[in-house]
Amino acid sequence: VAQRLVIVGGDAGGMAAVSQVRANNDAIEIVALEKGHWTSYSACGIPYVLSGEVDDIESLVARRPQEFRDRHGVDVRMRHEAAAINLDERTVEVRDHGHDRTYRLGFDHLLIATGAAAQRPAVEGCNLPFVHDVRTLDHAVALQPVSAASMGTNVVIVGGGYLGVELAEAMVHRGANVALVDRNLEVMKSLDPDLGAIVTKEMRHAGVNAITGAVVEAIEPGTVHTSSGPVSADLVLLAAGVKPNSALAEAAGLRLGAADAIWVDRRQRTSAEGVWSAGDCSASVHRVSGRPMWIALGTHANKQSRVAGINIGGGYATFPGVLGTAITRFGDLEISRTGLNQAEAAGAGFDATATTIEATTTAGYYPGAQPMTVRAVVERGSGRLLGAQIVGGAGAAKRIDTCAVAITAGMTVNDIVDLDLAYAPPFAGVWDPVLVAARAAMKVG
Amino acid sequence: VAQRLVIVGGDAGGMAAVSQVRANNDAIEIVALEKGHWTSYSACGIPYVLSGEVDDIESLVARRPQEFRDRHGVDVRMRHEAAAINLDERTVEVRDHGHDRTYRLGFDHLLIATGAAAQRPAVEGCNLPFVHDVRTLDHAVALQPVSAASMGTNVVIVGGGYLGVELAEAMVHRGANVALVDRNLEVMKSLDPDLGAIVTKEMRHAGVNAITGAVVEAIEPGTVHTSSGPVSADLVLLAAGVKPNSALAEAAGLRLGAADAIWVDRRQRTSAEGVWSAGDCSASVHRVSGRPMWIALGTHANKQSRVAGINIGGGYATFPGVLGTAITRFGDLEISRTGLNQAEAAGAGFDATATTIEATTTAGYYPGAQPMTVRAVVERGSGRLLGAQIVGGAGAAKRIDTCAVAITAGMTVNDIVDLDLAYAPPFAGVWDPVLVAARAAMKVG
Repeated sequence: VAQRLVIVGGDAGGMAAVSQVRANNDAIEIVALEKGHWTSYSACGIPYVLSGEVDDIESLVARRPQEFRDRHGVDVRMRHEAAAINLDERTVEVRDHGHDRTYRLGFDHLLIATGAAAQRPAVEGCNLPFVHDVRTLDHAVALQPVSAASMGTNVVIVGGGYLGVELAEAMVHRGANVALVDRNLEVMKSLDPDLGAIVTKEMRHAGVNAITGAVVEAIEPGTVHTSSGPVSADLVLLAAGVKPNSALAEAAGLRLGAADAIWVDRRQRTSAEGVWSAGDCSASVHRVSGRPMWIALGTHANKQSRVAGINIGGGYATFPGVLGTAITRFGDLEISRTGLNQAEAAGAGFDATATTIEATTTAGYYPGAQPMTVRAVVERGSGRLLGAQIVGGAGAAKRIDTCAVAITAGMTVNDIVDLDLAYAPPFAGVWDPVLVAARAAMKVG
Repeated sequence: VAQRLVIVGGDAGGMAAVSQVRANNDAIEIVALEKGHWTSYSACGIPYVLSGEVDDIESLVARRPQEFRDRHGVDVRMRHEAAAINLDERTVEVRDHGHDRTYRLGFDHLLIATGAAAQRPAVEGCNLPFVHDVRTLDHAVALQPVSAASMGTNVVIVGGGYLGVELAEAMVHRGANVALVDRNLEVMKSLDPDLGAIVTKEMRHAGVNAITGAVVEAIEPGTVHTSSGPVSADLVLLAAGVKPNSALAEAAGLRLGAADAIWVDRRQRTSAEGVWSAGDCSASVHRVSGRPMWIALGTHANKQSRVAGINIGGGYATFPGVLGTAITRFGDLEISRTGLNQAEAAGAGFDATATTIEATTTAGYYPGAQPMTVRAVVERGSGRLLGAQIVGGAGAAKRIDTCAVAITAGMTVNDIVDLDLAYAPPFAGVWDPVLVAARAAMKVG
């Protein structure tokens, strides 16, 4: 009898495995359970739906259920939710929301890809109807008409990380009066504070009421009460972080790891034989610190799922961990980071220096040259690059990839100065800003 | 008595050494001889002066003679040319063009940075007054008014490499009727031909008469005769490559290397004690093939000169060689390459595969997503990345730096797939095109 793979969760963490499994195994039966209405979509695109830059929500869907059925022979069951996992029986208890029934489904392999959910502030009024999570495509469907009609209304965004900054941009783009509440003194806490300050300043310059160093204390109709006073609110968007959906796995007795995400080894195996996990619900390892960590990003979900799929199909692949590379934009200001910031480096036990340089996105004399700031976090003594952050004009932030590769390769700032990076006046100065940062860091020693 | 360093050539190859020498040596006397009118300028910026995007030619000058005098105590002698070097006497014979006199100047250290000169086709009419080199700032000064008045005139560009493509863009921008003659079947011969074809096509789409697979046979007033027939010409711009200015060094008995450039070791030492060379006149090594090579690029000139300066000052630094990374643009099409192309890989004895993928500059659904093509040249068996080429829309080409770092680190395509590169919809798809290329190359094996 053919084996059966059950995939719990129809987004990237689950479904990116399918083509890899199929590449090595035509015979295995694949059943995918998705509790919602969508498969394999780009949650990262939601802010651009709300801004109006992307009109067609469906364009965010990379692959539809029927595509998985037709091309890969997957039995995709929409609005079917895994309610419990029985590891001894090797069954999943499935709730079919469409037909209001429950059934048991046996598995040989199980891939848990339950993703992450928005973290809601534990304050009164958080469940009022004008307070919204911005996490799933269903949220996007609900919010699209609201955001389209938000000109002149008061929008309060809770949280100043990537999503918060992107939502602020979107709502400014819509002509709303935007306030953003962040508990830290500067937004973008994944940057060192002085680079975060550049972003905070740019947001204020664009008219955002950035209420930093403050927390939300209560929400009532028309008003968000913060520790810095009340703010008018017709709409509240929650962007206060996410948490892994690991309750199902935990209840089944699977080991949890960093941030209570599902523990996996380098092949995406959980603590139980034949049970795998990938995507936002699963933990990972930081490639610089070597420590367990958890981060929810679409790029990792796709890679981890690919690795799980190869292994489930009988091949061999490993996921080596993450650098925490991330990129975003506020208006014309690009923002990126990779590796460890200064606080993270200290926390991981490194003795690290931080060097910040100012350069321009193109040759200084080239029209449209924009300022860019590069920070290098470097291990003292060895000169090894541990992390980098970039804030600047068009073309600035994707340079973080150069730093990400150098960090992965264990390069020192001396190695980096020797790199043969591309130069022409419309693209860079003769010393690319990444090289300028490495040179400056060499002097610090 | 203090030692004396004589620098021959006042551009980057010579002058980038100065601050490094001074950092370690306050006492040494530094004399810099420059036969022309300018020091330390960006020759790479000249096409953008001709296009009119950069108005002020002086903005291309990074550091003026007086700055070297005031800040670094350098005796900068403009319009003084080194006519001969006597290694036994340790003197330079100097021609002072301003005062029409010749004198001898002793040195303890000598840094030869005589740069490169345009390679002129050996055809009749090449010295006619409407035929111009485009190499030095003096050329730019002469050509600026000509290009500004070129609307509706016939401009013929000889050579379809980086400079030729940039000049074609500049002259199209000015509204000239532009023809470009290139001996290869596609422009940009440093790319594999099918990627070069994308550039040729884009040039033709912009109205450039790209006469490929043809050579210039003669030039006469009003006409360039090519092997594909005559072309009307009010202005001819030569962009048929450069050659190292190594005659002075050769006459002194110094060893020459690749392409008859001045041979240097990894510390930028020539074959004679106390004699150094850096910049476009000096040879180098390819970091992938390990073979001697010569390439004239401002970024290397600066790095080599820095290394020479550190060593002359008594420190220790090496220049590890180049990857041949380069970048340019034609209109909205960005073009870049690094490492070995397919022909170069074969020539260096590698058994290499080439994989080409099509992707988009941003998430496919994001407004303004542009096509981009990535080619990966990969060693068979090991999977090591040997070279990469990128052609595409805004934001495409600078990604070549990611490849350049990966090549430098000796990464395989498997290593590259594991890289944590930055992802957000305005910047990339969830699999960055570089990762897509690596995945495709893995399948080729």
